[in-house]
Amino acid sequence: MEALVLEQKDKLSLRDFPIERDEEALGPHDVRIQLRKVGVCGSDVHYYTHGAIGPFVVRAPMILGHEASGEVIELGSAVTDLALGDRVCMEPGIPDPNSRAARLGLYNLDPAVRFWATPPIHGILRPTCVHPAAYTFKLPDTVNDDAGAMVEPLAVGVHAANKARIQPGDVAVVTGAGPIGMVTVLAALAAGCSRVIVSDVQEPKLEIAAKLGAVIPVNVRSEKLEDVVARETDGWGADVVFEASGAEKACEGLFPLVRPNGCVVFIGLPLSHIAYDVAAASVKEARVEHVFRYAHVYPRAVAMLASGAIDVSSLITDHFAFADSVEAFDFAKAMPATSVKVQITMPT
Amino acid sequence: MEALVLEQKDKLSLRDFPIERDEEALGPHDVRIQLRKVGVCGSDVHYYTHGAIGPFVVRAPMILGHEASGEVIELGSAVTDLALGDRVCMEPGIPDPNSRAARLGLYNLDPAVRFWATPPIHGILRPTCVHPAAYTFKLPDTVNDDAGAMVEPLAVGVHAANKARIQPGDVAVVTGAGPIGMVTVLAALAAGCSRVIVSDVQEPKLEIAAKLGAVIPVNVRSEKLEDVVARETDGWGADVVFEASGAEKACEGLFPLVRPNGCVVFIGLPLSHIAYDVAAASVKEARVEHVFRYAHVYPRAVAMLASGAIDVSSLITDHFAFADSVEAFDFAKAMPATSVKVQITMPT
Amino acid sequence: MEALVLEQKDKLSLRDFPIERDEEALGPHDVRIQLRKVGVCGSDVHYYTHGAIGPFVVRAPMILGHEASGEVIELGSAVTDLALGDRVCMEPGIPDPNSRAARLGLYNLDPAVRFWATPPIHGILRPTCVHPAAYTFKLPDTVNDDAGAMVEPLAVGVHAANKARIQPGDVAVVTGAGPIGMVTVLAALAAGCSRVIVSDVQEPKLEIAAKLGAVIPVNVRSEKLEDVVARETDGWGADVVFEASGAEKACEGLFPLVRPNGCVVFIGLPLSHIAYDVAAASVKEARVEHVFRYAHVYPRAVAMLASGAIDVSSLITDHFAFADSVEAFDFAKAMPATSVKVQITMPT
Amino acid sequence: MEALVLEQKDKLSLRDFPIERDEEALGPHDVRIQLRKVGVCGSDVHYYTHGAIGPFVVRAPMILGHEASGEVIELGSAVTDLALGDRVCMEPGIPDPNSRAARLGLYNLDPAVRFWATPPIHGILRPTCVHPAAYTFKLPDTVNDDAGAMVEPLAVGVHAANKARIQPGDVAVVTGAGPIGMVTVLAALAAGCSRVIVSDVQEPKLEIAAKLGAVIPVNVRSEKLEDVVARETDGWGADVVFEASGAEKACEGLFPLVRPNGCVVFIGLPLSHIAYDVAAASVKEARVEHVFRYAHVYPRAVAMLASGAIDVSSLITDHFAFADSVEAFDFAKAMPATSVKVQITMPT
Repeated sequence: MEALVLEQKDKLSLRDFPIERDEEALGPHDVRIQLRKVGVCGSDVHYYTHGAIGPFVVRAPMILGHEASGEVIELGSAVTDLALGDRVCMEPGIPDPNSRAARLGLYNLDPAVRFWATPPIHGILRPTCVHPAAYTFKLPDTVNDDAGAMVEPLAVGVHAANKARIQPGDVAVVTGAGPIGMVTVLAALAAGCSRVIVSDVQEPKLEIAAKLGAVIPVNVRSEKLEDVVARETDGWGADVVFEASGAEKACEGLFPLVRPNGCVVFIGLPLSHIAYDVAAASVKEARVEHVFRYAHVYPRAVAMLASGAIDVSSLITDHFAFADSVEAFDFAKAMPATSVKVQITMPT
Repeated sequence: MEALVLEQKDKLSLRDFPIERDEEALGPHDVRIQLRKVGVCGSDVHYYTHGAIGPFVVRAPMILGHEASGEVIELGSAVTDLALGDRVCMEPGIPDPNSRAARLGLYNLDPAVRFWATPPIHGILRPTCVHPAAYTFKLPDTVNDDAGAMVEPLAVGVHAANKARIQPGDVAVVTGAGPIGMVTVLAALAAGCSRVIVSDVQEPKLEIAAKLGAVIPVNVRSEKLEDVVARETDGWGADVVFEASGAEKACEGLFPLVRPNGCVVFIGLPLSHIAYDVAAASVKEARVEHVFRYAHVYPRAVAMLASGAIDVSSLITDHFAFADSVEAFDFAKAMPATSVKVQITMPT
Repeated sequence: MEALVLEQKDKLSLRDFPIERDEEALGPHDVRIQLRKVGVCGSDVHYYTHGAIGPFVVRAPMILGHEASGEVIELGSAVTDLALGDRVCMEPGIPDPNSRAARLGLYNLDPAVRFWATPPIHGILRPTCVHPAAYTFKLPDTVNDDAGAMVEPLAVGVHAANKARIQPGDVAVVTGAGPIGMVTVLAALAAGCSRVIVSDVQEPKLEIAAKLGAVIPVNVRSEKLEDVVARETDGWGADVVFEASGAEKACEGLFPLVRPNGCVVFIGLPLSHIAYDVAAASVKEARVEHVFRYAHVYPRAVAMLASGAIDVSSLITDHFAFADSVEAFDFAKAMPATSVKVQITMPT
Repeated sequence: MEALVLEQKDKLSLRDFPIERDEEALGPHDVRIQLRKVGVCGSDVHYYTHGAIGPFVVRAPMILGHEASGEVIELGSAVTDLALGDRVCMEPGIPDPNSRAARLGLYNLDPAVRFWATPPIHGILRPTCVHPAAYTFKLPDTVNDDAGAMVEPLAVGVHAANKARIQPGDVAVVTGAGPIGMVTVLAALAAGCSRVIVSDVQEPKLEIAAKLGAVIPVNVRSEKLEDVVARETDGWGADVVFEASGAEKACEGLFPLVRPNGCVVFIGLPLSHIAYDVAAASVKEARVEHVFRYAHVYPRAVAMLASGAIDVSSLITDHFAFADSVEAFDFAKAMPATSVKVQITMPT
């Protein structure tokens, strides 16, 4: 089938690609899905530009893409909670349900998880795929295909909000207004934050963020984030600080932002170790949480999109046809300041 | 000063009432407040109609009213975070800060708390009062006096939402669409619920509730609540069930509504013991929480009103002038189906 | 094979009993176990004397027994973490790992769980059984067969202690000094309680409890439990109250025992609804937890037996040979005051 | 009165020292205490050898000592829960009960806290002191003066165990077998850990630790801590890792030790920033907690000493008379490998 293939670092092609037969076989608990929309994630682009993310190295041609919505076109014999024609979104990671982590409910932490577009597992920038029904979620009529393909990144933000244990009325900080920062803003507001202070260096991104709700944008080129937080919280500090930039410098200035006994959540992954001030964290008894993807979040994210508690439409800034997938990646790679999420429309 | 005085059961008068001098004395950490708006609470009405609530018996004439907004007209010598002319709302309960409960941060559970309009403590249906600055909260321009006087009941809903530890995307049930049920709906939605199922027997109240957001109204005269919850949650159950009716019958049917490991929060206080099904709660490992007023919630509630995360305006259905206070109470006592909150405008 | 069969209410026989072939088939992830010790549980006795527990009715002859230790005598082809000759204990309930509850880590709440000696599932008072390796736990040399067969009831106590979220130095109350009350005392002490107040009406049981550690026995025939708790906690109340008697009267007097914001855990299952005082629970903002069996507790219980943090040996008061199983049940049915746990030694 | 005075860096003298009159005045809620035992803490020694700890600089002669037990010799007029002759231990920090942190129950995080022997507040190596009754705790007969003076360091360990939210059966790691590491071992065991793996480089300290209970000592000069943890936990990782060495190198190797979703608690304060591996923490979704002294822990620690749940006697390795205080400090400064806690006996 035709697929967007990362042949090797810096080389993408849209070409016919043979899928292993057993990957195409429909088990009793699986569904076959025709893809409709696929978002381009920073990790997809990073594999394109670097050929690897940490220990995950692209050693053979691999299909990209893991943020997707689609339509169910075939049902495994034991599937009862989905129907032909259902529009759906899919969790890209499939854990071993008998792993120690999965049995504890921590399936995202199972080291054996198979995750789309993480070598050597293929992604879904291709016409169809087979997926377990248990990780396939029906989209109601009020959630369109574009929003459905946003559930994957949104789930990261919602998972981070869960870890923070936000209480209604909290003040949050989000450092970084990229796609993950943006969905974290939405999740924090939906979870009850009365205000979210968002920092970035790109004015167009801050302008988009400012329209997401009770958001206070801070361009750290012209204002000191710590000063804004102090002003907005009477010097007490923010209840929760979400680090969503992955920038070492941002990571190293978080404890002055948080209130006594507040929470810092690291979402972004800096490329190298950061300098961490144990004493600054200690005098505040900060709680630090780390997130890795998400677990049990998809149905919640879909429900909030359906109810209108979260609206992701303003984040989908750019659309490309599947035939123009390579252009879509080159566009995303250039990281225009006005772009948040690039989506690819799959052929029907 | 002129005050609304509950002389005894069934007898209210608006008359000049002498306040003890030491109650009027302004301590260094106090402020003097001119009242602006005072809401009528079910407990005020209950003292009027019954002369007592449980162990609290009205044995001497007592001024009613504890839901209030006002304006700061005099500052104690040590007060630094409020200014003359600040519009404010006030927590009606003043704990002993050195009590064991208060030191643990549980000041609402201090048995020695002095609470407005709970015998023998006077309420604030009178022109002015003296109050500790620590329990007086500035209202920003975006929160008007009416909303300010709603912070007290709203705080109950927010406290209940805190206890429930709502996670974004939860489905909640609220039994009872009286004033406390309504603010609980608002708090549950603000805290991230994707949907709130509200039950009552009065259609006008359900109509008001239905306009508060992603609300599913259920008239239990015509529909079985358990069936609606099963339908809305694919038979799994609601994540959180808030009991806000105080009706024994409602209290006794909660466990079939909640999901495995879900949470039931009792807010309403039934007049007698309820029949409690330990086995039904056990097979689901339900967590049951109880709330008593609130603690540390006022600044959060004000912040959410200010940001627009919560809008209480549709709940303030009826207004009376202070001169008509007795009429206001007789109106509230009749409990018209279309009335949620009655407020009294204090003279300027 | 020879088994202890409950033919019908009130009729036990030790006789040859044909086991269905598929129940005897060893799957790749299973082990075959030769039973060594089997404890007699109150639920076993209740099936004997009543023929049913709630909705679970014995409609066909059923083998009893679910508290067991044994030895691995055959390994499924995919089993890697157990070896022939390993001494083991086994969780008696096998959930569907793909159920919604199991995926959340709440496998004990899966309604489809198959649990030994719960009709129509056979128990293990028979020479051998086949069991999933995932629910079979190796016993170290320091935990003998008798203690191994105590892991099942002990797991109930440890699960209850987990739910209570005991903090080191807490004072706990346990109502009821039967086998479950006793293991709850042990779990509460191991979890950090500085003292455990235990109530019962049988002096011999209280004497056994008193030797388990920092225990204060209270015979409620001669002392009022509420008075003892007040005295021991300076009137503040206990941090945690475990209800382990299942007696309605005990269930109805719990809130006066607990401190503000303390926790009540229901372990015992009263036969009928209890009268529940919402107001008493509310003024203390009590948290009420319910437990249903246990999840993820076996390895923890085994580790604590191995380290000596918990010693169950004094609770195993009576031993019978398998050939005398019917006598063992008749003895247990008589509930002698000096007996806590009856165990049956299986033939080697 | 005669006191041990730190005149300046490196200069201690035992001499008559005038105490400000208002510090000696007995308020209605205070008690006067005759000191009995005072422990020497690493921070006392650090002020001696460096003249400062971070921002706290000794600018004028200051009395040292903050770990103490004593006897009540005078009662303020409003004190009701203590009596003349009571043996007591005292929290060395006195917060402002009206601070925002204290009102939330986080009194240890109040920046205005006045803490003994933290400049410019004097410590208690002197015959008597005046202290608030609210921070003075009666010792029962079963807790002697030596143990009473150990409550202060023990409270640090118990607070850390609280933050970790230990569940019974957890496996913990403690890095560093100094006094704080030792009390953390005791607290972790009392809180339910089935085993505690302790690392250090000094064999005598590991030998003392090994006798505290189910402890696995690891000399990191000869063994790799990560290997021991993997072996003891079947490669899964420890549930909780307590960092109690303050050594940068130890701080930087913690995430490989902890299990998925496990907890790391920083107790030690490294002198400089540490290199922190966000990616390693993220793939495990580690929770990181920081502690600053303790809050609400003293009564719990006393109760556990009284019940025997914790026994600190083996940690009090060295005794000096008050007349030999300077020698005591010089001994402690030399940090003999066989010494854990040095205590000074005050004159009666």
